[in-house]
Amino acid sequence: MDNKFDGWPHIIKAQQFSREWIEKEFFPLTKNMEKISKNGLENRILFGKIMITFFYEPSTRTRFSFEMAMFHWGGQVCQTENAGEFSSAVKGETLKDTILVLNRLRPDVIVLRHHEEGSAALAASISSVPIINAGDGIGQHPTQALLDVYTIYKKFGTLDDISVAMVGDLMNGRTVRSLSYLLGKFKNIRIYFVSPSCARMKTDIKEYLEKHGVVISETNDLRLVANKVNVIYQTRTQKERGTNFDKNDHNLGYFVVDNSILDLMIKDAIIMHPLPRVDEINTEVDKDPRAIYLTDQVESGLHTRMALLKMILAP
Amino acid sequence: MDNKFDGWPHIIKAQQFSREWIEKEFFPLTKNMEKISKNGLENRILFGKIMITFFYEPSTRTRFSFEMAMFHWGGQVCQTENAGEFSSAVKGETLKDTILVLNRLRPDVIVLRHHEEGSAALAASISSVPIINAGDGIGQHPTQALLDVYTIYKKFGTLDDISVAMVGDLMNGRTVRSLSYLLGKFKNIRIYFVSPSCARMKTDIKEYLEKHGVVISETNDLRLVANKVNVIYQTRTQKERGTNFDKNDHNLGYFVVDNSILDLMIKDAIIMHPLPRVDEINTEVDKDPRAIYLTDQVESGLHTRMALLKMILAP
Amino acid sequence: MDNKFDGWPHIIKAQQFSREWIEKEFFPLTKNMEKISKNGLENRILFGKIMITFFYEPSTRTRFSFEMAMFHWGGQVCQTENAGEFSSAVKGETLKDTILVLNRLRPDVIVLRHHEEGSAALAASISSVPIINAGDGIGQHPTQALLDVYTIYKKFGTLDDISVAMVGDLMNGRTVRSLSYLLGKFKNIRIYFVSPSCARMKTDIKEYLEKHGVVISETNDLRLVANKVNVIYQTRTQKERGTNFDKNDHNLGYFVVDNSILDLMIKDAIIMHPLPRVDEINTEVDKDPRAIYLTDQVESGLHTRMALLKMILAP
Repeated sequence: MDNKFDGWPHIIKAQQFSREWIEKEFFPLTKNMEKISKNGLENRILFGKIMITFFYEPSTRTRFSFEMAMFHWGGQVCQTENAGEFSSAVKGETLKDTILVLNRLRPDVIVLRHHEEGSAALAASISSVPIINAGDGIGQHPTQALLDVYTIYKKFGTLDDISVAMVGDLMNGRTVRSLSYLLGKFKNIRIYFVSPSCARMKTDIKEYLEKHGVVISETNDLRLVANKVNVIYQTRTQKERGTNFDKNDHNLGYFVVDNSILDLMIKDAIIMHPLPRVDEINTEVDKDPRAIYLTDQVESGLHTRMALLKMILAP
Repeated sequence: MDNKFDGWPHIIKAQQFSREWIEKEFFPLTKNMEKISKNGLENRILFGKIMITFFYEPSTRTRFSFEMAMFHWGGQVCQTENAGEFSSAVKGETLKDTILVLNRLRPDVIVLRHHEEGSAALAASISSVPIINAGDGIGQHPTQALLDVYTIYKKFGTLDDISVAMVGDLMNGRTVRSLSYLLGKFKNIRIYFVSPSCARMKTDIKEYLEKHGVVISETNDLRLVANKVNVIYQTRTQKERGTNFDKNDHNLGYFVVDNSILDLMIKDAIIMHPLPRVDEINTEVDKDPRAIYLTDQVESGLHTRMALLKMILAP
Repeated sequence: MDNKFDGWPHIIKAQQFSREWIEKEFFPLTKNMEKISKNGLENRILFGKIMITFFYEPSTRTRFSFEMAMFHWGGQVCQTENAGEFSSAVKGETLKDTILVLNRLRPDVIVLRHHEEGSAALAASISSVPIINAGDGIGQHPTQALLDVYTIYKKFGTLDDISVAMVGDLMNGRTVRSLSYLLGKFKNIRIYFVSPSCARMKTDIKEYLEKHGVVISETNDLRLVANKVNVIYQTRTQKERGTNFDKNDHNLGYFVVDNSILDLMIKDAIIMHPLPRVDEINTEVDKDPRAIYLTDQVESGLHTRMALLKMILAP
C-alpha cells in the first residue's frame, strides 16, 4: 500500500489520515515501537539526520516528545522553544520567509508550533522539507489525534464499537475536535459530549459525526454516562482561549473525574487526558489502573512520533 | 599557505581576513561544501567535537546556521538562546568570568553573540578556546561578511570589477559596514550608497574605501543606480538601534525593491539581504531568479560556517 | 564496596554521601576524569544515552556543566532552560505530573532545577528514572557540594586537618550549608564563619558541626583568619533571597578578598567561590595562583558530573 496520502510527507491535519492508512500502516508500526529496545546501535536508523523543532509558543511536553523520539532513533535536534519571542519574528519576519530560510539550512524535518490556525498548511505549501504540525493555534494537532486513537487501539485492539465520553471544554479544546475527526472513520462509534452549556462542542463537528454515522448525545453530567463508556476523554479548560467555568459549580453540571466516577465506570475502561491536567481529574484517581493519562498515553505519544519519523525519514 | 592570520583561530572582525586568505583558502573550501552530500558517515569529521553557542541576545537564524553547520559535520551543540536574561549575567557576572568558566567546560569552539561592541575581541583575548563572533552589538558580524562575499563570488566567479548598491539604513546596519571592509580588498569595486539623509553611511567607512581605491557615490534614489549594479544589497531599518524613516515617503527618496526596480536591473544581477526582511523588498520580487536572499544566500551562510568550523577544528 | 547508598541512583542531598563512598568511590573516579582525553571514541561510554535537563529557573552555568559532561561521554541532551515560564507549569501542572510524563519519554537520567525546597526529593520518590538535584530553592545543590570537596581534596590530597573560612552571605548561601554537611564527615576540621551579623550561618548547621567535632568560630573580619586557613570559600550575596549588605561598609566588618587578603594568606592555600562572582573577590586577585574559582574549581565541576553520570549510567 502506498502511504503517500494527501499531503505526505507533511503532517498537517487529522483529516489527512485514511482509516486504511491508520489500521494498516500506522498502528502496526507504532505497535512495533514498543518492542524496540532503545539505545541499541541497530536502532539508530536516523543517525546523521537532523530535526528542527521551531516553536512559536511554549509546549515543553510536545517538544520533548518529538525530540526524545528523534534522540531514541539516534538523530540530532536543533531547537528553539520560544521563536515568537526570540527569533526574527519580533523584527517582523513572516512565517513564509522563516520556513524558506530553515529549508536552506538543510534539516531533514521541521516540527512547527505556531499560534495561528493554518500556519502549518502554509508552511507545508512552500517547504521542500517535511513539515510536522505540532499545533497551530485553535487549528490542529494531528500527532496528538494519532496518539489518542493509538492509545485506544492499543487497549481494545480495535477502534470499532467504541463509546467515548468527551468531557470539559469542548468548545475550545483542539484535541477533542481532532479525535472526533478520526473516530468518524470507524464503525459503531458512540460519543457523549459532556460540558456546560457555555463550552459545547461546535456544530461543524457534530454535523460531521452525524454524517459519518456516529451516534452522539450531549449532557452536562458525567455521572449519567460514566457507566456506559470505554473511554473517558477528559480535557483542561482553555482559559488562554477564553473559556472559563467553575468545574465544581454543580448548577452547571458534573465534569470532574474523581473516585465517585471511578465507582461508576466499567472495569475495562480507560481515562485519557491530553495533559497538562489541572484539577479536572482528582489526583485520587491517578493510582487506578484505568488512569493511563500520565503513563501509557504519554508513552503512546513517544511511540507515535517515533513511528512517524521512521515513515518520513527512513521509510 | 599559512591560514593562521591575525587572531586565528578566533574569528572576530572582517578586517582579519586578507584577500589572499579569502581567495586561496576560504572560497575553495566553502565551494567544496556544496559538493559534500551530507549525512554520509565519511563527512562526520567533527564527531565528538562540541560547540557552545552562547547568545546574549536573540538571533535564531544566526544561531541555527552555526548549529546546523556543526550537526552536518556530526558534532554536538550546547546552547543558550538568551544568556542575557537567563544566565548568571543577571546576577552580575562579567563576560570575562563567563568566558573563563566556559573554557574549563572544555568545548572545542565558542560562538558568541553579545550586545556590546568589542565583546568578542575581549573574549578572544582571554580564551584558550576559539571564539567566533556571531555579532557584537553595533560592532562586527564577520561570518555574515564572509558569507556575503562568498555569495557574490559564487555568482560571478570573482570579486573584482563588481558594482554594488547598498540600500537602506546604512548608518546602523552592521552588515554593510563589514561588507565594505571586505570589498575594499578587491579591484575595480564601485559602491553606490542609497539611503535617506538621516541614515547615511558613516565617514570612517567612506574614507577607508576611498583610501583603497573604491569608487563610491551616494544617492537617495535606488532607481538611478539599479541599472548599473551587479548586486543590490538591501537592508532592514535598525529600529532597535534608533534609525527610523518611512520607506514609502518619496520625499526622502526611493529605497524599496519592487517590480519596477526589477525592470531596471541588468539580467545577470543579484538581490541580497542579510535578513530578516520586513517590507524593504516587496514579496512580488521573491520569485525572480535574481532574488537569492531567501535561497542561495542563506545556503552560502551554512556553507561558510561549515568551512570555518572545518578550518578551525579539523584543519 | 556497594555504592548504592541511601537514595541511589537519585542524587538529592549532601547528607546522602558517606565518607567511605566519597573517599573510596567518588574521589578516585573523579580523579580519573582528568586523565581521560576527551573525544576518543573509546570514551563514548554514554553513546545512545539521553539526559533531560529540566530547569525551572535559570542557571546556565550549572546546566552547561551537566550537559557538557554528557556530551564528553558521547550522550545526548534534551533540555529546557526556563520550564517555569515556558512549560505547562504555567498552565497549572504539578511537578509530580511533569516527572511522571518525563519518565514515559524514556530518558536515562533527569537533571532537575526547581525553585522549591524538597522538590528533588519529591521527584525522586515517584521517578523510575534517576533524578539529579541541580538545586532546589534554598534547599540543596549536592553536586556543587561534591565538586567543592573534590576541589579541596585534589589540592591537599585529603579532607582531614583542613581549615576553611566561609565568607559572606552564610544565611542564605546554599553552597556553604552543603559544604558544611560534607566537611562534618572528616577529622580535625576547623571552620571560620566570616559574615556580618545580618547574614550569620544558621543554628542547625552550627549544631550539626559541633556534634561532629568540627571546631567552629565566627567573626566579621576576614583579615583576622586569612592567615589561618587552607581554604577561603567566598560567596555571593543572595539578593534574590533577601540578604543585602554593603560589603565595603567597614562598620559591618571585612569580607572582600583583595590583594591585602592575599598578603595575609598562607602560600599553599586556595580561594574558592561557587560563582557567579560579583564584587566580593576583587579582580586583582584573579591572577594569583591560589585563585582557582574560575579555573580548577570549574573543571572539578565538570569532572564531578562526568564521574556521577558514569556511576549512574555505566557503572
